[in-house]
Amino acid sequence: MRRPVPLPKAYRLLNHGPTVLVTSAHGGRRNVMAAAWNMALDFDPPKVCVVIDKSTWTRELVEASGVFVLNLPTRALAAATVAVGSESGREAAPDKFARHGLRTMEGEAVPVPLVEGCAGWLECRVLPQAHNEQRHDLFIGEVLAAWADDRVFRDGHWLYGPDTDPQLRTLHYVAGGHFFATGEAFTV
Amino acid sequence: MRRPVPLPKAYRLLNHGPTVLVTSAHGGRRNVMAAAWNMALDFDPPKVCVVIDKSTWTRELVEASGVFVLNLPTRALAAATVAVGSESGREAAPDKFARHGLRTMEGEAVPVPLVEGCAGWLECRVLPQAHNEQRHDLFIGEVLAAWADDRVFRDGHWLYGPDTDPQLRTLHYVAGGHFFATGEAFTV
Repeated sequence: MRRPVPLPKAYRLLNHGPTVLVTSAHGGRRNVMAAAWNMALDFDPPKVCVVIDKSTWTRELVEASGVFVLNLPTRALAAATVAVGSESGREAAPDKFARHGLRTMEGEAVPVPLVEGCAGWLECRVLPQAHNEQRHDLFIGEVLAAWADDRVFRDGHWLYGPDTDPQLRTLHYVAGGHFFATGEAFTV
Repeated sequence: MRRPVPLPKAYRLLNHGPTVLVTSAHGGRRNVMAAAWNMALDFDPPKVCVVIDKSTWTRELVEASGVFVLNLPTRALAAATVAVGSESGREAAPDKFARHGLRTMEGEAVPVPLVEGCAGWLECRVLPQAHNEQRHDLFIGEVLAAWADDRVFRDGHWLYGPDTDPQLRTLHYVAGGHFFATGEAFTV
């Protein structure tokens, strides 16, 4: 079940370095792409960084709307993550969600779809930084709402353990279809 | 054994989202801090982002020298990673390396120590961006040299598998001393 994550704990969704799906929407169209290059940038209000290449249709939608969502795909969505990272949605019909079986739901803070089956979601508005965007394809977002699947993240903590369904683990992308799943939890 | 990583493959050291140790040096002094907030920013020449808070001594050393190294600690270094992330080296004597048993070696591109026992190393020069640094504590670096332990990364690929010594896996920090190890490798 999707539950809200208090904003000061939102950074914990990204701290371990998962690959994300960036969703976007504008003018009645919507898109989804994969992004390994993301990180938390601040605690409260929470901010994030994500790289969105100039060549992507996501870039156009995010620039036009000023908002995006970072979705944390699980292992069950690994094939779809590679697929949506390997093609453009600009000319795709039906859109990339439909082509790859990604169902969506509405968030609360921004008019951008959230991908069902993810472990967490960060609804963001762009903090415009023309130099970063033009020179480095680097976008900074303020997190306006955060959510997590309470089977894997609750009360500000990840719950992954030996008994967790492996299909619910988050993803760490390397290259060429190669991933690591989020591994063993330990404390020092 | 430490082997060079071709620069166009350097991003693969960070793509899966490991926590890093940031090492720095200036004027005969040196320091090390932990940073979960890092990511790759470009392929070739490779660039990286890392957040270095204004309150840290690392920040002073990096601003003075214009260089830093991102070291990828392994599970064997998890306790030291928490320790160097929990105290300032500004007044520490001996320095944080010595206090926490971190041995170092020299790199080739920048005069900053590399932490022994890490899985990979990225020697970087700062690409100065005053607004990012002042407003967001965000530093952009160009990777001048990259290295990896050939027991875990070779020919541009991570070698983690069921037979890898768990102590050689990279770390994904959450908060409060809680980590995930880099987990199961799979391909879609």
